[in-house]
Amino acid sequence: MNLKQLSQLLGLSQTTVSRALNGYPEVNAETRRRVLEAVRETGYRPNRAAQRLATGRAGSIGLVMPTADGIYSDVHFGEFLAGLGDEAVKHDFHFVINPSHPDDEAATCRKLVASGNVDAIFLAYMREKDPRIPMLKSLKTPFVVHGRTIGVPTDYPFLDIDNTGAFYDAARLLAQLGHRHFALINGPDHLAFAMRRKKGAKRALAEHGLTLPEECIYHARMTDEQGFQAMERFLRLDTPPTAILCSSTVLALGAVRAINQAGLKLGQDISLIAHDDVLPMLRPENFSVPLTTTRSSLRAAGQRIAQRLIAGILNLEVLPQQELWKTDLIVRASTGPAPAGKPA
Amino acid sequence: MNLKQLSQLLGLSQTTVSRALNGYPEVNAETRRRVLEAVRETGYRPNRAAQRLATGRAGSIGLVMPTADGIYSDVHFGEFLAGLGDEAVKHDFHFVINPSHPDDEAATCRKLVASGNVDAIFLAYMREKDPRIPMLKSLKTPFVVHGRTIGVPTDYPFLDIDNTGAFYDAARLLAQLGHRHFALINGPDHLAFAMRRKKGAKRALAEHGLTLPEECIYHARMTDEQGFQAMERFLRLDTPPTAILCSSTVLALGAVRAINQAGLKLGQDISLIAHDDVLPMLRPENFSVPLTTTRSSLRAAGQRIAQRLIAGILNLEVLPQQELWKTDLIVRASTGPAPAGKPA
Repeated sequence: MNLKQLSQLLGLSQTTVSRALNGYPEVNAETRRRVLEAVRETGYRPNRAAQRLATGRAGSIGLVMPTADGIYSDVHFGEFLAGLGDEAVKHDFHFVINPSHPDDEAATCRKLVASGNVDAIFLAYMREKDPRIPMLKSLKTPFVVHGRTIGVPTDYPFLDIDNTGAFYDAARLLAQLGHRHFALINGPDHLAFAMRRKKGAKRALAEHGLTLPEECIYHARMTDEQGFQAMERFLRLDTPPTAILCSSTVLALGAVRAINQAGLKLGQDISLIAHDDVLPMLRPENFSVPLTTTRSSLRAAGQRIAQRLIAGILNLEVLPQQELWKTDLIVRASTGPAPAGKPA
Repeated sequence: MNLKQLSQLLGLSQTTVSRALNGYPEVNAETRRRVLEAVRETGYRPNRAAQRLATGRAGSIGLVMPTADGIYSDVHFGEFLAGLGDEAVKHDFHFVINPSHPDDEAATCRKLVASGNVDAIFLAYMREKDPRIPMLKSLKTPFVVHGRTIGVPTDYPFLDIDNTGAFYDAARLLAQLGHRHFALINGPDHLAFAMRRKKGAKRALAEHGLTLPEECIYHARMTDEQGFQAMERFLRLDTPPTAILCSSTVLALGAVRAINQAGLKLGQDISLIAHDDVLPMLRPENFSVPLTTTRSSLRAAGQRIAQRLIAGILNLEVLPQQELWKTDLIVRASTGPAPAGKPA
């Protein structure tokens, strides 16, 4: 089956079929649907190299995946990738993923652009004054950043959630409930999202005349084990916190176990709010005591970023280049008034 | 910085530097280390297109990622990908990932090969009589299968764990401990690994004159929520099982919560063995009652498959083409003798 045969089968011109396959906007949705259905049924394979010569496009998005011995895989990465995939599959785009030691991410990213294998770059795991931003701005390849860096002008395309606002809202609710002793179980301290969450929490506490002492801040990879260790450490303090902010439901899993093992009741003796990326394997509403959360779907973010990148490459539509998504603060049973035995 | 300048800087011939960069075995490890270090320091970028012309290789491994609205991302996929990445980064290989609706996996895989963008294919999520095996055997591109299909000759390169043996071992231990009523919380019923685990469990039970009734088998995606629902259903049976086999620590998370909510004691009233892929975000030894498991590292499997694929592409060494890894049965506190109140 070649393009000519496929076109004859459909009763369409080769130009129309080719345009439908390559996502040109002038082909209407119904025609595109018919073409894609025929492609699936007949097993027609467009010659990628020929397609690339004709369109000048590789049909791909490039990503760098940090990996190394001792560096854990991240459930959040897989969920985000699924979101990118949801959108990419609609336009027959693929991903080129370069694994990289975390210290080499900028060099790997540059190499990925130079390879000519990608039409656009997706960037994540933003750090303070991240060198990848000026590097990518100096090149011609379009890119979208998931998150935002800190300490450089925000004049590049991004999609981020309002991490500062999320943890401001969470800390404020707990302060309004009378809590005076707070702790934060956060992501790695060199990542921008973690810095912003800490800032948001501190801002809300300051408005209530409260502080977040250094001994009540724990930075770690997002695993069950780290959540457990953080909570155990907090419970050994002279004045243990009664209000816990937690950067992931995965961390919360371990924190809740430590709370249970200490014989404390979640939502009564101690309150906890976790950030919920809407990971399908772990839902906050299914915890024994359902968790109050700040919620934003990581998969939806992946879908949106892929949509923006592909729309740009194919000139499908003009979409906003900078988006800051508010999170939802959803109250469940893990939050309650500060216990009476713990006055300010 | 071009190849000539890089070679002069290192005091090596261009041929040697090029061979080191392209993973030829005749370059010794120390030289390769020096070259890669210089590449990192100088930001030298080999021209991928030129490299490809010279070597005839794309330097890449192709994967199909099943994705669709309503299809959950899989934490196991991310962990496996990290393992592939550990090895790929050593040889400057990248991944080309085509997202695909699960029903289109064979067509997407064929398209990936036809694109000419990949040197080898990695295949997973094997089903009974999987059509991708004969399809790939008819093409020239090397491939390795993670898992094995059922119902076709096993005459292709694979790496699998002994799923039958793992669940045979687990069921046998519980039968030896006096349990008579078993249940299985398994993966999706169309996937080969889930079929083999059921077979292994049934075989051990048959040797003890026991059966696994249909109402005690639950097939589901590997999420916390599904584990909870499965266990709740089992506990409502007229004769609830006292011995639970579980295909993932993620499923076990929900199952254990249902056990706790029913006021039952794990390891006393009810025993549970889970399969442990060694997911870093969830460790069986950290459960409140540490879990007995059948263990095999998914990340190690990813590393090994990447090693085999890359060794084949670069002619580095001859590695076995078919590997069946035994799992470890590790006994912890979640298993104990059948409760006295539940005679056979």
